[in-house]
Amino acid sequence: MNAFSETASAEAGSDQREIEFSRFVSQSRQLVDERLGSLLPAESLPPTNVHAAIRWSVFAGGKRFRPLLLLAVGETFGATSDQLVDTACALEMIHTYSLIHDDLPSMDNDDLRRGRATCHIRFGEATAILAGDALQTLAFKTVAETESLDGNKRAELIREIASASGTPFGMVAGQAHDLDAESRDVSPGELEQIHRLKTGALIIAAAKCGAIIANASAAEMSAVTDYAAQLGLLFQITDDLLDVTATAEALGKTPGKDLRSQKATYPAQYGIDATKKHLVDVHEGACAALKRLDRSTSLLQAIADFILKRQT
Amino acid sequence: MNAFSETASAEAGSDQREIEFSRFVSQSRQLVDERLGSLLPAESLPPTNVHAAIRWSVFAGGKRFRPLLLLAVGETFGATSDQLVDTACALEMIHTYSLIHDDLPSMDNDDLRRGRATCHIRFGEATAILAGDALQTLAFKTVAETESLDGNKRAELIREIASASGTPFGMVAGQAHDLDAESRDVSPGELEQIHRLKTGALIIAAAKCGAIIANASAAEMSAVTDYAAQLGLLFQITDDLLDVTATAEALGKTPGKDLRSQKATYPAQYGIDATKKHLVDVHEGACAALKRLDRSTSLLQAIADFILKRQT
Repeated sequence: MNAFSETASAEAGSDQREIEFSRFVSQSRQLVDERLGSLLPAESLPPTNVHAAIRWSVFAGGKRFRPLLLLAVGETFGATSDQLVDTACALEMIHTYSLIHDDLPSMDNDDLRRGRATCHIRFGEATAILAGDALQTLAFKTVAETESLDGNKRAELIREIASASGTPFGMVAGQAHDLDAESRDVSPGELEQIHRLKTGALIIAAAKCGAIIANASAAEMSAVTDYAAQLGLLFQITDDLLDVTATAEALGKTPGKDLRSQKATYPAQYGIDATKKHLVDVHEGACAALKRLDRSTSLLQAIADFILKRQT
Repeated sequence: MNAFSETASAEAGSDQREIEFSRFVSQSRQLVDERLGSLLPAESLPPTNVHAAIRWSVFAGGKRFRPLLLLAVGETFGATSDQLVDTACALEMIHTYSLIHDDLPSMDNDDLRRGRATCHIRFGEATAILAGDALQTLAFKTVAETESLDGNKRAELIREIASASGTPFGMVAGQAHDLDAESRDVSPGELEQIHRLKTGALIIAAAKCGAIIANASAAEMSAVTDYAAQLGLLFQITDDLLDVTATAEALGKTPGKDLRSQKATYPAQYGIDATKKHLVDVHEGACAALKRLDRSTSLLQAIADFILKRQT
């Protein structure tokens, strides 16, 4: 094999991987969206405003990143989508509840998300608060009712998701630190801690839940946790970068808003070039963690590559 | 035994029952408060404002009615307090989260609860929303981590609590209906439905959780559910009555507020005298359900009597 055909073959392999990954993404999104559709209360049921608000926010064009990660990790370790999908949906419910509450006037005061009115703008503040509350409840109810998993597994998953979404070591703590950081200078260490709690913890939980459902070993769990921690960081840094560099049309929200409101972001701390370099290091960290797994990790690898290159 | 000594003996029995009930209440409150103290994040841990807000609202002099009911039902059917206390605390967390969110400006807009500033008045709106969110999360985490119960039991309890506190058949749905009813006339049927969802569902869940933990039979579960449904109604009606008849000092909140804001209440619908008569009927309904149990139900009986006569 000469140098040319080697390159061509590598490119073909890369193309093939991208096609497979695209297929995984679209199939998984469809699976999750259909299941969410039947898990969420129907809009025709009273209180209709709360149920409409829930569906407005859940079906607002989200990327389903946490469910995809859970499905990818679970499938990597041999679980079936039937075992995985309900917990994947629960994570999306938790994520969506947090977006609804974070957007409220007393929090980040956002009118627009993914190009549409935020929940409280569309349905009023009281209904938005209740929709968020109910989504959190439904997330735990969904896992508690997953028939394809035994009770111990369900309890373990709920414990994992609750730890990652509450306080002092989860998402709510991260949002509190973030609000606190808006009006003052934060150190690089604080910034990383805010991200770790606000988005990282739930992303790690998504990966761990996939591994728990698939009965992964302790060593596998440890590698997956490290991979997901880097992935969470990667996701947050690309988010910060897009906020500075992308257009409003591509983002579906007003770019530069984070910077204007003095929010703790990587570009604000380090500048754009240093942030881009940091991104590459973090991506390498994620890949290194995957190398510790004695499994085919092409799907997990593709997720890390995809986030590195994402434009929205 | 002559008529006089019979009466005297009945009175002595009634005194004895009251002493035993008082002892149960104070011991149970202490047990629950101590356990809540160790389950809730320490105020010294960051984010300190969220943790202070959580403790401010949880330790605001609440009656611990739902935990007491869970403990009473559980003990009636032979469970130990070690098996019961964590789920009892979880119910108090859910109840407190709902009070924090209901008091918010966009909801009931209350400045005062139990004689103290409400959470958002004391800590600001964003922190109050996060404190409520975190309390809900911690409630489910607490049940998921209860070591004295097996996984299936934990999952069943979480399912029960989540159904009763979410939508369409739980507390959040009740609050949504209640807000909707503020500005218009409601029918007696609607009023009962609002109460059933807003406070009744979680009170029923408290009783059922006690029965679940104690492995009660299906027939026992059914009687306990009927008892708790009447108890929830009793609790709501006395609440409504106290709002009209009690002084601000006794209530720790502005009396008559519900009436002024056109909230759906029993006295507003039926007048005070008819409401008091209804109260007695509901109390009898609760007692009738207890008669179906082949157990000593003096504790559960005492709870119904106590609510009937309550002044705060």
